[in-house]
Amino acid sequence: MTTIKLTVSYDGTDYVGWQSQKNGVSVQDEIEAALFKVVGERIRVTGSGRTDAGVHATGQVASFKTDSSVPPEKFALAINAFLPKDIRIIKSERAEDGFSARYSAKRKTYRYRLYISDVALPLKERYALRLETAPDLTKMRAAAELFVGKHDFRSFSSTGSSVKTTEREIYSVSVNEADGDITIDVCGNGFLYNMVRLVSGALVAAGYGKISDNDVIAALSGGERPASVKNLAAKGLTLLSVEYR
Amino acid sequence: MTTIKLTVSYDGTDYVGWQSQKNGVSVQDEIEAALFKVVGERIRVTGSGRTDAGVHATGQVASFKTDSSVPPEKFALAINAFLPKDIRIIKSERAEDGFSARYSAKRKTYRYRLYISDVALPLKERYALRLETAPDLTKMRAAAELFVGKHDFRSFSSTGSSVKTTEREIYSVSVNEADGDITIDVCGNGFLYNMVRLVSGALVAAGYGKISDNDVIAALSGGERPASVKNLAAKGLTLLSVEYR
Repeated sequence: MTTIKLTVSYDGTDYVGWQSQKNGVSVQDEIEAALFKVVGERIRVTGSGRTDAGVHATGQVASFKTDSSVPPEKFALAINAFLPKDIRIIKSERAEDGFSARYSAKRKTYRYRLYISDVALPLKERYALRLETAPDLTKMRAAAELFVGKHDFRSFSSTGSSVKTTEREIYSVSVNEADGDITIDVCGNGFLYNMVRLVSGALVAAGYGKISDNDVIAALSGGERPASVKNLAAKGLTLLSVEYR
Repeated sequence: MTTIKLTVSYDGTDYVGWQSQKNGVSVQDEIEAALFKVVGERIRVTGSGRTDAGVHATGQVASFKTDSSVPPEKFALAINAFLPKDIRIIKSERAEDGFSARYSAKRKTYRYRLYISDVALPLKERYALRLETAPDLTKMRAAAELFVGKHDFRSFSSTGSSVKTTEREIYSVSVNEADGDITIDVCGNGFLYNMVRLVSGALVAAGYGKISDNDVIAALSGGERPASVKNLAAKGLTLLSVEYR
């Protein structure tokens, strides 16, 4: 058996997320259906993790095992031939034995995109969340620092997934601005359900002065998440990359 | 009668272009239908010019005359309430009597977007054209300079529209690169059918060394357009702005 690693990009707008669900078509479903057409057998593909419905990716990673004689680096082209346009395998390669896109992942980086406008802008709406007024970047950056490190992120996750522990480590959170658009890049060893969208929501709330540093510190120390912290829309979120050892 | 000026943004993907056509729904159709719901009468809206099927806009301008008592600056919100999500009026304002979005226009700026990848990238495909290999930016910029000025652009237009003259003046053509993506910004007093896409196609051909400066000069002096100059895909083109006196 050969283990194959896929790097995958998708526009998540029309999908129920990465992982197979009963309520609609997932990115995983589409890739498994395309792979079936390539190798003639049903193979389960493992993603580095779920991405929520509507979330995008430029560098999701998936893996699978196969006895197929297709050369590892040719799977990208072969699978792409059967995929819808909004999903593409960017790269396929042979991985070491025992590699799992899920269990071997060491760090992931997500980007949340915001733009400022009193009117929805059709060319930005698909991949970013609109804010009516500009938040204070200095306040956002100060709040961002509070999330860095090992914390119990229970208050910055939604219920619905069963996890062993709600402790995660965030390595960096950076807030950048270009041409008036704001990006929040979050890098960590793993993320709970809705965690990046809730952390981004906390930075926006901080940028508007709706929550204080102490509110964040309290929520990271077993307290409740302030009510003004929203779970920001999925469409603004993109999984940029997954790194392995 | 009051003359109203609208600034309009749209994702042109699903439209036959700005102007009403027999073969599908245009942006103009949608705006006129929404305006009918606002004021209760059929009003013809004049755009600064056509944009081709699939072309986008962040700053298209349109005008119309009305006796409506709706305050000029409120038309944006009122019309937006009846528009599909991929079209938005960014601003509405009272224009001077005699203002025509078409005839009063002094200069327009278009942007053509390119990205480089051997695989289609789902998050870029909607608003940019993919090139498999990177063209030489220095060669593209040298070719860009040749288009600046008053020229007969007949060879850089498609037949199909009746115009009095094929002379146009281009004020500037700039080629920029950011994060590996290339933009071509073209500003001029007006553009023939497909002209920006053909000029962009010439810059790409020049960037690959497929045409020489002399080929461009000859085509601008009554000669034919080189066969390697393609009319680049509509999806990569966005009308950025229209300026008036």
